[in-house]
Amino acid sequence: MSTTITLYPLSNFTFSTKEAQPEEDPSVQARLQRLQNNYEDFGMRRTVEGVLVVHDHGHPHILMLQIANAFFKLPGDYLKPGEDETNGLKSRLNDRLAPLGGADASDEGDWEIGDCLAQWWRPNFETFMYPYVPPHVTKPKECKKLFMVQMPEKKVLAVPKNMKLLAIPLFELYDNAARYGPQLSAIPHLLSRYDFIYQ
Amino acid sequence: MSTTITLYPLSNFTFSTKEAQPEEDPSVQARLQRLQNNYEDFGMRRTVEGVLVVHDHGHPHILMLQIANAFFKLPGDYLKPGEDETNGLKSRLNDRLAPLGGADASDEGDWEIGDCLAQWWRPNFETFMYPYVPPHVTKPKECKKLFMVQMPEKKVLAVPKNMKLLAIPLFELYDNAARYGPQLSAIPHLLSRYDFIYQ
Repeated sequence: MSTTITLYPLSNFTFSTKEAQPEEDPSVQARLQRLQNNYEDFGMRRTVEGVLVVHDHGHPHILMLQIANAFFKLPGDYLKPGEDETNGLKSRLNDRLAPLGGADASDEGDWEIGDCLAQWWRPNFETFMYPYVPPHVTKPKECKKLFMVQMPEKKVLAVPKNMKLLAIPLFELYDNAARYGPQLSAIPHLLSRYDFIYQ
Repeated sequence: MSTTITLYPLSNFTFSTKEAQPEEDPSVQARLQRLQNNYEDFGMRRTVEGVLVVHDHGHPHILMLQIANAFFKLPGDYLKPGEDETNGLKSRLNDRLAPLGGADASDEGDWEIGDCLAQWWRPNFETFMYPYVPPHVTKPKECKKLFMVQMPEKKVLAVPKNMKLLAIPLFELYDNAARYGPQLSAIPHLLSRYDFIYQ
């Protein structure tokens, strides 16, 4: 298993904008209600998100979406029942970040999905998630998987107008659950086993 | 890459005691001074530690040493200059946990060293470590690697009299840096990508 990964500089990537992509649910409560409705119909929700890594001056940075100048999230979303994880993630990354009408828009693009980095489990129809299945929980309501996404040497990304795409350095995420929450602030731990080559 | 790992129950393992193994350094200050002295002679210290995973009632537990009823540590230690990581870790695990005079005492035992789970970097001759090389640090003073150690179905372990070996559940470590420190409390994140089979 190779744990050496080549990172390219942030300056190699071109960012444009595209039409706004409103949130599917207007509130956390509405999102949890949809989760519950979907659970009754389809069982446990499966969510996939991509950890897109670049570097700036030899320090790894993660590309994250910021919505409404407030909370941060990784690109990704929940899968349809039966949908393949890897192809589903490629499709979600394209929906969110591929330029409209480009080659990427018509197929699954050239996203290179790498290792699974983490799994987060939601035991109840509530906001709390854990990086393990808590004891006595036999029917988790959601499993979210984070995947390493190897960024190519160059790429054009198009960001919906209602979002920003920010490159957050590991040293900013680390030990900063207050600002980024437990999932994003743990990314430095998840990446620490890799040896990065800074091109 | 297989990320499925079989865990055996804590009750399969037998714990005995052996002679005390006093700490090499009497204080944190003495340990940092030795680090500095060794750095001047041999360069960056390389440390290896094992994450020994078992389960109890279907929840993963980590085997940790507790010293003087106070702080917790993983089994492992720093390597000699040029020493191989995997063999060095096997040898440290034997020194600490193999029964004296058993088959394990005369060779490197049957420890199965798995994936590197994390790397921690010490930028200065100080206690702080980070799960990345901080920006502008070109000569880290220590790199500590944590390795998954696949526990066999059964094993006899002998614990030095001045230590306890405790099985700490993931839910106790998670989000508990106050008690276990930043390194041990991050172990649930490092293991979350694995699918465990509970035998």
